[in-house]
Amino acid sequence: MESINFGIIGAGRIGKLHAENILNSVKGARLKVITDPFLDEDWASNLGITVFGKDHKIMLDDPEIDAILIGSPSSEHANQIIECARAGKHIFCEKPIALEPELIRSALDEVEKCGVKLQVGFNRRFDPNFAAIKQKVANGSLGVPQIIKVISRDPAPPPPKYISSSGGLFLDMTIHDFDMVRFLSGSEVEEVHAFGSVLIDPAIGEAGDIDSAVISIKFENGALGQIENSRKAVYGYDQRIEVFGSKGTAIAENNTPTSMVVLNEHGTVRDKPLYFFLERYKAAFVNEVQAFVDAIYSDKTPPVSGKDGLTPVLIALACKESLLTGKSIKVMYN
Amino acid sequence: MESINFGIIGAGRIGKLHAENILNSVKGARLKVITDPFLDEDWASNLGITVFGKDHKIMLDDPEIDAILIGSPSSEHANQIIECARAGKHIFCEKPIALEPELIRSALDEVEKCGVKLQVGFNRRFDPNFAAIKQKVANGSLGVPQIIKVISRDPAPPPPKYISSSGGLFLDMTIHDFDMVRFLSGSEVEEVHAFGSVLIDPAIGEAGDIDSAVISIKFENGALGQIENSRKAVYGYDQRIEVFGSKGTAIAENNTPTSMVVLNEHGTVRDKPLYFFLERYKAAFVNEVQAFVDAIYSDKTPPVSGKDGLTPVLIALACKESLLTGKSIKVMYN
Amino acid sequence: MESINFGIIGAGRIGKLHAENILNSVKGARLKVITDPFLDEDWASNLGITVFGKDHKIMLDDPEIDAILIGSPSSEHANQIIECARAGKHIFCEKPIALEPELIRSALDEVEKCGVKLQVGFNRRFDPNFAAIKQKVANGSLGVPQIIKVISRDPAPPPPKYISSSGGLFLDMTIHDFDMVRFLSGSEVEEVHAFGSVLIDPAIGEAGDIDSAVISIKFENGALGQIENSRKAVYGYDQRIEVFGSKGTAIAENNTPTSMVVLNEHGTVRDKPLYFFLERYKAAFVNEVQAFVDAIYSDKTPPVSGKDGLTPVLIALACKESLLTGKSIKVMYN
Amino acid sequence: MESINFGIIGAGRIGKLHAENILNSVKGARLKVITDPFLDEDWASNLGITVFGKDHKIMLDDPEIDAILIGSPSSEHANQIIECARAGKHIFCEKPIALEPELIRSALDEVEKCGVKLQVGFNRRFDPNFAAIKQKVANGSLGVPQIIKVISRDPAPPPPKYISSSGGLFLDMTIHDFDMVRFLSGSEVEEVHAFGSVLIDPAIGEAGDIDSAVISIKFENGALGQIENSRKAVYGYDQRIEVFGSKGTAIAENNTPTSMVVLNEHGTVRDKPLYFFLERYKAAFVNEVQAFVDAIYSDKTPPVSGKDGLTPVLIALACKESLLTGKSIKVMYN
Repeated sequence: MESINFGIIGAGRIGKLHAENILNSVKGARLKVITDPFLDEDWASNLGITVFGKDHKIMLDDPEIDAILIGSPSSEHANQIIECARAGKHIFCEKPIALEPELIRSALDEVEKCGVKLQVGFNRRFDPNFAAIKQKVANGSLGVPQIIKVISRDPAPPPPKYISSSGGLFLDMTIHDFDMVRFLSGSEVEEVHAFGSVLIDPAIGEAGDIDSAVISIKFENGALGQIENSRKAVYGYDQRIEVFGSKGTAIAENNTPTSMVVLNEHGTVRDKPLYFFLERYKAAFVNEVQAFVDAIYSDKTPPVSGKDGLTPVLIALACKESLLTGKSIKVMYN
Repeated sequence: MESINFGIIGAGRIGKLHAENILNSVKGARLKVITDPFLDEDWASNLGITVFGKDHKIMLDDPEIDAILIGSPSSEHANQIIECARAGKHIFCEKPIALEPELIRSALDEVEKCGVKLQVGFNRRFDPNFAAIKQKVANGSLGVPQIIKVISRDPAPPPPKYISSSGGLFLDMTIHDFDMVRFLSGSEVEEVHAFGSVLIDPAIGEAGDIDSAVISIKFENGALGQIENSRKAVYGYDQRIEVFGSKGTAIAENNTPTSMVVLNEHGTVRDKPLYFFLERYKAAFVNEVQAFVDAIYSDKTPPVSGKDGLTPVLIALACKESLLTGKSIKVMYN
Repeated sequence: MESINFGIIGAGRIGKLHAENILNSVKGARLKVITDPFLDEDWASNLGITVFGKDHKIMLDDPEIDAILIGSPSSEHANQIIECARAGKHIFCEKPIALEPELIRSALDEVEKCGVKLQVGFNRRFDPNFAAIKQKVANGSLGVPQIIKVISRDPAPPPPKYISSSGGLFLDMTIHDFDMVRFLSGSEVEEVHAFGSVLIDPAIGEAGDIDSAVISIKFENGALGQIENSRKAVYGYDQRIEVFGSKGTAIAENNTPTSMVVLNEHGTVRDKPLYFFLERYKAAFVNEVQAFVDAIYSDKTPPVSGKDGLTPVLIALACKESLLTGKSIKVMYN
Repeated sequence: MESINFGIIGAGRIGKLHAENILNSVKGARLKVITDPFLDEDWASNLGITVFGKDHKIMLDDPEIDAILIGSPSSEHANQIIECARAGKHIFCEKPIALEPELIRSALDEVEKCGVKLQVGFNRRFDPNFAAIKQKVANGSLGVPQIIKVISRDPAPPPPKYISSSGGLFLDMTIHDFDMVRFLSGSEVEEVHAFGSVLIDPAIGEAGDIDSAVISIKFENGALGQIENSRKAVYGYDQRIEVFGSKGTAIAENNTPTSMVVLNEHGTVRDKPLYFFLERYKAAFVNEVQAFVDAIYSDKTPPVSGKDGLTPVLIALACKESLLTGKSIKVMYN
């Protein structure tokens, strides 16, 4: 196999990003076809993409397509995974697979039955900062991980209309953080507790959601965790993690556009963090697809599995229940 | 009044520290007498302290004593407050006043009845870093505080024997953090949740306590909080706080002995944090007594009141109940 | 003109880098042909380059070639500039144009006569950190620049054999720093003084060169400057600049692979700087060619002119004379 | 000897500072007498100093005085050293001893003849940051020191009237930096070069001085150095040093009042550096007198010797000559 030929379903913001990455930055990959019901054909032509259309079915029957990247709306992910699996295509699917565990499980069953590879788009695992911390955990430099911490704050909340179809803060935003604590701790989440508030925008509350949350975690191995979320940090995208262990602690600070420091009458001033996820996780978006391509070449299991797609949804549902009941809730894995 | 004359009850580590601070660093204060059942008389003589003894009663009857600093074992605090109040002395009492709310309330009642001033030794409010954050909150620079965060990790756990009489992690260690979140948020704690684990030393578990904890807080005004504690950080005393608000976030990082940076084959290396509370809060210990002295001179209420001594104990008790029941617990203020 | 068609002369390390950048990262540019007497043809084929060869003459006659990037050995630059200019091609030439001012002047004369555009490869101007400082200077945030400082230390010295044909430290290494101080100060260098030593490798001294230097600068407008060079920093590539002005100072610190901080028994440890220029100036190498392409599209003067190629050589020659004579030397501009 | 009894000559800003330090912070020292022609007697009384006056002769004859701290105007230092030495008193003298080498040599000769101890007030050696770097040099962590760098910028220039009697920038301000490079390099300065400009205030130029300077140094062992001075940094007192060696580099950054970081719409903001030398070198001023006291107790040579007082003056004079002649100047040690 000379190069992995990709089809991409969905050419919204994230589909376009993956398309450009496959064209320019991912080694051993080619982009053959992209589909979207509302495709921006000029964009596709300018990139030199030759096959495109509205219906992703054209790539299912194309024997030259090795892998399909699903970047469509979340509500279509599970069905499209099933279609792709049945067509024998390897699958890279943006998160979440679905908001309902049963839909996810059906999709994963089909993937397993068809013997194709599936990677879920938890891109942050491939961020160089977080990957460096994971490596410190994995090589024992930090000793036994005892406390895992995540701060994740967006620069601005999504529109209230988006909120109502998002599944809520835990399924839409915190889900990345649930993946991160699993990735870093090397243990499964046993029990969670969540407090939430509407502090940013009353419209979010009226849509039945919260915009600020603090979450406590107990892992199966006794380690503890804390996640904190806000939908709006005026200074930009705040993405920090820490793993505290018996031999030390490792902290990932925010990335900034430059390393410039200015001292003037107002103080010692550095840049704000990079504005949002497209800037902050630019390398991560390339790296995750590269890892998927490498897994296909080497016939290995991709580094973010179907189970990794399911589990954060289960944790999010436990947090929702905690918020309603005021109790610590054990994650229901079965 | 030319100078405030102090007596100090208790000449253990903390009593000695206060004695040296009053002698060398606090303006407008004199140390006249110190007592301790096991007094190190050489230490006292070398400092030039002329009156000392085993029984603190000698200072109660001394009309030249204006104020008494109580640095005895915690179990004696409440009774000594009552004695000092009845003798008409202003009181600076180390935390906690007592582990039982009823004892604290009795002492506070007597203080009020006798019309003396009382300040409780929550020294961290006087740390320059934390005071700077408080000022940012107070002057509105951060907008509305939304999330208050505390990391507090000790460099080494106390001996298991100490643990059993300490009241447990929440009353012994987290109590400072409960004070800090109240100080910074400007709102009272409404509800708490706690997870705890024994991750450092099994002997702590056998003594009936935990050595690691994550605590979530909901404030009366809807703001949220997170506290995290560990009894052992191998790199020293880790004391960080953050107030995230609608206009920005303010973070207090750790203090270090020097500002030196070394770049070598191993990386870019700076100092570890200052080892423990005597180093980290050196200025705070001076500043808190200075503030007490200033409050006496100006006949103002001291900046850490009796209520400030009681409330963290009530929050700690709610955390203990949360740990036992697995539920969010509302703090019982009455 | 749909896209600028490039030819590249020279496929050594720097030529290959530019080729890959033009193929993957520069907008509005295509790579049509690359030549090198010792061309690695597999490398070229794998990149999908269709025309290649040993002799750059093939691109001079090709009417489809708009611009030529010269990445050959320095001794060939001046002649190749003349050839390219006569062929009517725009020219991007790696630094230095030549080590002898007369050769540079001849080449620049031909460029002017032929009316083609020329940009010299002082890539560091396009580094995001340094560009941010330049912007602070340009928009007046720093007030009047008073002192310009450059630290430039390589991770390892070149082989002694390279040294002897390099023109020496000032022409080979410091030349970038001479460009940087001109770029940042907005004033020309009037006078210089240099001290040098052989502290790293005696073989460098035996080759007639120095490996460590400190240089003082007086600018025409009275501002002052300091440059410092070492051929070997064990911790990697150290590239810092500072512009101190009447309203503040701006410092560019080193870039690192990650933002991770580890606290352990040894201290507070961050990454070393990025290892060498390929990593450190990765973005700068793309940005400079993008700026050249944009200048061609918009028919503007490229941002690093022929004069910018000549002047640092004149400054380097003054430093050489200072080293020999022990005097401050005025730069000979005519 | 129970305690070293001090007399202080001069109760201006620096004399008062030393008086308060001896009273409150230096171990094993007592302040018995202070004199100043314009003594602020209220200040002295409030501190509990019992013996004071206008004429320092009262302490020369007092057999209880062990040591005299000279904090008078610089022009009186040399004579007072001679008087104190003849009276058999140990001497701590503020820098500079004098502006003329011959006066310094006379004073040092008398000190040696009388067998008393002399320490010169180069306080910065006792700054914890710089002392930590010195320790890294001394223990070999940095390998062979190759380049020594000092940035020293004042927050505001002295009044022009002061300038004219100060001896000029090199003798008044850079003299501390000359001491620092000697202290850190472990080698003597062989040759210097200086450029200077008037960039801050034309009145300084009219007074015959410069307000900005860059200095290059060649040490006897081949190591190189750079010093940079400005009389005015709008952001406060900028005091940074770096020692670059064969095994790494050590940098002392500025100290700040707090460790607080604020992220808001304007950036990531920290404190400015501490404002000026009283704040920045607060600990150093205590530590240097403590070291002097310790040297007396243990009958050791004080850590900043008479030669350490003379040599920076010789270096400053070489810089003056370089500025006039445009040449590198060898320091005249004999």
